[in-house]
Amino acid sequence: MRILIIGGHGTIGKKVTSHFAEGNDLVIAGRTSGDYTVDISDSNSIQALFEKVGSVDAVICIAGEAKWADFEELTEADYYIGLKSKLMGQVNLVRIGKNYLSKGGSITLSTGILADDPVIKTTSAAMVNGGIHSFVQAVALEIEDGIRVNAVSLGVVEDAYDKYRDYFPGHNPIPMTKVVNAYTRSVKGKDNGKIIRVYN
Amino acid sequence: MRILIIGGHGTIGKKVTSHFAEGNDLVIAGRTSGDYTVDISDSNSIQALFEKVGSVDAVICIAGEAKWADFEELTEADYYIGLKSKLMGQVNLVRIGKNYLSKGGSITLSTGILADDPVIKTTSAAMVNGGIHSFVQAVALEIEDGIRVNAVSLGVVEDAYDKYRDYFPGHNPIPMTKVVNAYTRSVKGKDNGKIIRVYN
Ligand SMILES: NC(=O)c1ccc[n+]([C@@H]2O[C@H](COP(=O)([O-])OP(=O)(O)OC[C@H]3O[C@@H](n4cnc5c(N)ncnc54)[C@H](OP(=O)(O)O)[C@@H]3O)[C@@H](O)[C@H]2O)c1
Ligand SMILES: NC(=O)c1ccc[n+]([C@@H]2O[C@H](COP(=O)([O-])OP(=O)(O)OC[C@H]3O[C@@H](n4cnc5c(N)ncnc54)[C@H](OP(=O)(O)O)[C@@H]3O)[C@@H](O)[C@H]2O)c1
Repeated sequence: MRILIIGGHGTIGKKVTSHFAEGNDLVIAGRTSGDYTVDISDSNSIQALFEKVGSVDAVICIAGEAKWADFEELTEADYYIGLKSKLMGQVNLVRIGKNYLSKGGSITLSTGILADDPVIKTTSAAMVNGGIHSFVQAVALEIEDGIRVNAVSLGVVEDAYDKYRDYFPGHNPIPMTKVVNAYTRSVKGKDNGKIIRVYN
Repeated sequence: MRILIIGGHGTIGKKVTSHFAEGNDLVIAGRTSGDYTVDISDSNSIQALFEKVGSVDAVICIAGEAKWADFEELTEADYYIGLKSKLMGQVNLVRIGKNYLSKGGSITLSTGILADDPVIKTTSAAMVNGGIHSFVQAVALEIEDGIRVNAVSLGVVEDAYDKYRDYFPGHNPIPMTKVVNAYTRSVKGKDNGKIIRVYN
């Protein structure tokens, strides 16, 4: 399989990349690193990426930002960071990427536990994750050529636990093997329109 | 109770308004009708509304748009109609409205079944509803002064069934008494951060 992994050098992306490296032809993209650079918050940049990369069998996005801050402090403009990057960035990846996918190919987006079970400072981050969950279910009803779209929704992953643990009191870190399995399930399985939740 | 109902003259709003009219002091706002006009897609307009209306015990929003169209036809700009109106319009109502609520007051937003169970043409509409669901759960963790925030998520309501039935094959119309009860539960009960789903 030829697989485009956006954010393939990130904390989660690294582990997913090293898993898929065996037996697949990988193309890695990131904002500053990888075979190609792309800014998913800009749809022209996404279009330009696919024109360079060409046809693929799977797209995995493990990238996208949203601003974390107290509700009291988040400005209207702050919400648009997440809306443009993690939300519309991933929607645009589906809108544009589907034209470069082989028949029966898949697109896997990344969200997170905040959609279902938020913590403080995440009114914006939770919102964009929840938006993607509903979008994925809706787009699966319409997308053609056997293309499948899923989201992987993770709790705090083991490799990022030290960075995030104080924000997620009592949450259990998700082992990286389970993380890799979630992406594998989306790419190699038959799911479509599924939110693959790994919260424990 | 002094209750501000935005969209109080709409299909659903009319029934909610006539229910709450008994025993409460109502202020109705809408884009073109009501005691005051407001465009929730513009946060300055929301701010101006509250400056005129002053303090209230409850805000109910039964307004907000998103563009319905085939996934293949929706442009990036089309998604921003829903993001600005139904999504950020309602987020901004909470951001701004909380400053005008009495202690223990409530804000009730409106979403819909598409968040959980979309139909075709609703990649944008489902997305904004899902975003609001996660936002409501997140903001409830942080909002102060005993203020409560909930969303009412309805299936196709009886009074709009003829307009929408072809888009929702096999869905049961929601009786208007159940619709009114959902808003009553949010305003008069103690729920906070709850998605009040009425899908049957
Ligand atoms: N870490 C967790 O526990 C966790 C849990 C649930 C969900 N998530 C979500 O999973 C995703 C990845 O998380 P992570 O912890 O692996 O993040 P990370 O370590 O910060 O890595 C993010 C990766 O995405 C790329 N990237 C960031 N913004 C981009 C943009 N606008 N366009 C293109 N590429 C961009 C970065 O590229 P460069 O390195 O080249 O800049 C980097 O490779 C995020 O959306 C995060 O919210 C994370
Ligand atoms: N109908 C259903 O079966 C159903 C089911 C689930 C969810 N919902 C949701 O519930 C909400 C109301 O639905 P409805 O069927 O009652 O709609 P509706 O009949 O079209 O009424 C909408 C009301 O909202 C006002 N409005 C629209 N855009 C506005 C804006 N930007 N700023 C301020 N006010 C605005 C309108 O004011 P003016 O009349 O003054 O222009 C009108 O009073 C919508 O968000 C809809 O998606 C509806």
